[in-house]
Amino acid sequence: MNNHSEAPVEAYEPPYYVAVFTAVRTQEQSDYSETNARMEDLVKDVPGFLGMDHAQTPGGLGITVGYFRDAGALAEWRSNAEHRAAQKRGQVEWYRSYTLHVAKVERSYGFTRAQSPAAG
Amino acid sequence: MNNHSEAPVEAYEPPYYVAVFTAVRTQEQSDYSETNARMEDLVKDVPGFLGMDHAQTPGGLGITVGYFRDAGALAEWRSNAEHRAAQKRGQVEWYRSYTLHVAKVERSYGFTRAQSPAAG
Repeated sequence: MNNHSEAPVEAYEPPYYVAVFTAVRTQEQSDYSETNARMEDLVKDVPGFLGMDHAQTPGGLGITVGYFRDAGALAEWRSNAEHRAAQKRGQVEWYRSYTLHVAKVERSYGFTRAQSPAAG
Repeated sequence: MNNHSEAPVEAYEPPYYVAVFTAVRTQEQSDYSETNARMEDLVKDVPGFLGMDHAQTPGGLGITVGYFRDAGALAEWRSNAEHRAAQKRGQVEWYRSYTLHVAKVERSYGFTRAQSPAAG
């Protein structure tokens, strides 16, 4: 199976953690893309980081979900100095509003369509 | 504050539940929009339903997050007959792959930018 960039993060064996970040951005997006790419790189170095999904409705809501093996992995990411600096800048410049929900996964389930011989 | 359709669901007092549904769709989308709208109506009738966020990257990943007061509210939604029928049809027609993560929120946080007098 290809690790297609648009394939969602798989269902891991619970328990694990999800951090659901929902955000509406401002018009001021200087350095946002670069900082976002840097954060995506940095978080991969956190032991226990499992993956990240992101979807962005053009002109609307963005949802990012980070998956972590345990609360310690999340705490490490939360205390990362570069990450904290990016959060502060986000409040001042990039985000009109956002919400973070940190939750412990109790149940997970994945579905993948069987390849049809008819489909290319 | 306006209940702007793009404003994310707020941070409730934990504990509550999130159901994170990440999906990649197929080319076959007959009746998808109508069914999706019907599900959005139906879930609002579930006691303990708190809200829903959705973001869709064009041609890519869709993320839907449902928020529920407790496990009982989620169980009621999961057992809804029309919802179950829609899930089955989704597996046959609409989704190439999807993942569901059901998790209990332990911590939540919201940020809303103060209105600037300079901004319209």
